[in-house]
Amino acid sequence: MIVKGKHYKTVWLEGNTVYIINQPLLPHKFEIMECPDHQRTARAISTMVIRGAGAIGSAGGYGLAQAVLEAPENDFKAYIDAAYESLAHTRPTAQNLFYSLKRVYEKVQEASDPSQARVMAVNEAESIALEDINACKRIGEIGAALIGDNFKILTHCNAGWLAFTDWGTALSPMYVAKRANKNIFIWVDETRPRFQGARLTSWELKEEGIPFAVIADNAAGFYMQRGEVDMVIVGSDRIAKNGDVANKIGTYEKAVLARENNIPFYVAAPTATIDWNCKDGGEIPIEERSEEEVLAITGRDEVNVIRNVCIVPEGAAARNPAFDVTPAKYITGIITEKGIVKPQELKKLKGGRTA
Amino acid sequence: MIVKGKHYKTVWLEGNTVYIINQPLLPHKFEIMECPDHQRTARAISTMVIRGAGAIGSAGGYGLAQAVLEAPENDFKAYIDAAYESLAHTRPTAQNLFYSLKRVYEKVQEASDPSQARVMAVNEAESIALEDINACKRIGEIGAALIGDNFKILTHCNAGWLAFTDWGTALSPMYVAKRANKNIFIWVDETRPRFQGARLTSWELKEEGIPFAVIADNAAGFYMQRGEVDMVIVGSDRIAKNGDVANKIGTYEKAVLARENNIPFYVAAPTATIDWNCKDGGEIPIEERSEEEVLAITGRDEVNVIRNVCIVPEGAAARNPAFDVTPAKYITGIITEKGIVKPQELKKLKGGRTA
Repeated sequence: MIVKGKHYKTVWLEGNTVYIINQPLLPHKFEIMECPDHQRTARAISTMVIRGAGAIGSAGGYGLAQAVLEAPENDFKAYIDAAYESLAHTRPTAQNLFYSLKRVYEKVQEASDPSQARVMAVNEAESIALEDINACKRIGEIGAALIGDNFKILTHCNAGWLAFTDWGTALSPMYVAKRANKNIFIWVDETRPRFQGARLTSWELKEEGIPFAVIADNAAGFYMQRGEVDMVIVGSDRIAKNGDVANKIGTYEKAVLARENNIPFYVAAPTATIDWNCKDGGEIPIEERSEEEVLAITGRDEVNVIRNVCIVPEGAAARNPAFDVTPAKYITGIITEKGIVKPQELKKLKGGRTA
Repeated sequence: MIVKGKHYKTVWLEGNTVYIINQPLLPHKFEIMECPDHQRTARAISTMVIRGAGAIGSAGGYGLAQAVLEAPENDFKAYIDAAYESLAHTRPTAQNLFYSLKRVYEKVQEASDPSQARVMAVNEAESIALEDINACKRIGEIGAALIGDNFKILTHCNAGWLAFTDWGTALSPMYVAKRANKNIFIWVDETRPRFQGARLTSWELKEEGIPFAVIADNAAGFYMQRGEVDMVIVGSDRIAKNGDVANKIGTYEKAVLARENNIPFYVAAPTATIDWNCKDGGEIPIEERSEEEVLAITGRDEVNVIRNVCIVPEGAAARNPAFDVTPAKYITGIITEKGIVKPQELKKLKGGRTA
């Protein structure tokens, strides 16, 4: 999408270097991080310099391609295997990461020599990124059909273009609807603890000129109860075979509240997010992150210095699950690049990866 | 309760001065604010130096008593009427505030001269504070009977002693259970946007030595879903005649989630919180506060300087409803100083105000 008049993707490869939009600095600073080797790319994923299902997927693919470019010929396979392991351990919940690593890795195995492997790895990583962009754009077109004029839409976390390579999932239908001149308004759950809604979704919507209001996550139910939410669209980090959906912590709460208030609740995700080996949500590992993310908050002070402030008494403990699982029964539909399906009918999507 | 070895109430009157624990500074600093006149007391209420149903009630009573002490004899009634108006307009949702103002005001009207009015106003304000303390203590004793050994209890916002004159409501049963040597653990919803859970409830529990973890409001549903919440206890700012409960924004969300997960959901409140003139929750005015409370956050930096940091892009808009209404059907019981009733049976409590 466009930032300050120039088109950006969240992550791209140039030569041996991966470039990543530094998301923890947003919305305060727009900065590109250079990752000259796969270790730096891995660290950018684990420290959430880049985050979001599709963006992690592309970054993982590029990271492994980097490793293939770096690998010494006398230790080729072992180097790549080690890189695979380290990249796979950066984030435990994101299905797209494992999907991308596997695809690049398999191409390397098909190659007849290191030099062919390098070309094939880079091409495969580029294909993954391009497929992600195309799938997201298609999700936008398909999802926009659900959006009526004057709709007020609630979203949780950031499943915008920053969470993918471009376009995004939950926000993509809003971008398409806006460009089709529909009048829409977005309720942005701030999304504690990391404020991806307040920081990133609001930044994206503002750049795109879509009206919105940031709300405390606590206020989502209030506006639903008052009839001020026409639909909910969220993203997903992993979808189990039975239609259970892992997504940012708090998604389950919003889904239960949406059903209680008869509001359609949609999940927008490329089919790459579906883990066909995962029977149900109970099998999805839930990452628990540092309690510091709950106890202290980063923002900019009155002179634009970025600071971290602690909100609790000294020595207070916190718990910080990063995701939750929304059972399929709360989900109206899953918007994918292949169409919209009920979560219970997910298997209709199984098969070729064409839009 | 005890702070640093000394017993404190949240608000008290000495001579013509009202003393108030300065809650926005907690948990970073423990400081008492002096309010030498009723205007300062009114400002302390409207700016939330003191907040919480019972604490606002006591502060309002003391504030009006201050006005009676200040009122010039040649303009006695008009001065008090004006003070009444200004105190009544400090916060729109708190039932206890109107209840206290009315009681002190009626005493003044019963008095035969200004000097008797002064004595009666101060005595009435002291009675209100004392009744609040006694009611809260009784709520603790009654509510503690619901708490089993090894219970994990979720609470939202701060309905502890800081929210009342002493003891509190939602936290009072936990204090009594703890003193009866029950092993309990508290899930503390941080309670965005003002973080009353992260700042105040955690501070109270820490001072009292009760184990707890602060969680993002988004994580409450997650722990409910996993069977790690045995009961929920919250406070209330106003209870309508039909059992609908107004409380801090987000309470409605937790109530819906508790019912969905078959977890008992209790509201703890003195009967003074019941507004018998209010038919149902739809009649309770909901205060919308400044969007700044959502957009910027106060905490202490690494050298203990209290700072305000902004988390959103410049120019982002927010909405900030401070309360919501939980319909009676989601509430298992209301714990009052007169016993526990189902919300639908509230009228059993109507009548004399004795414990």
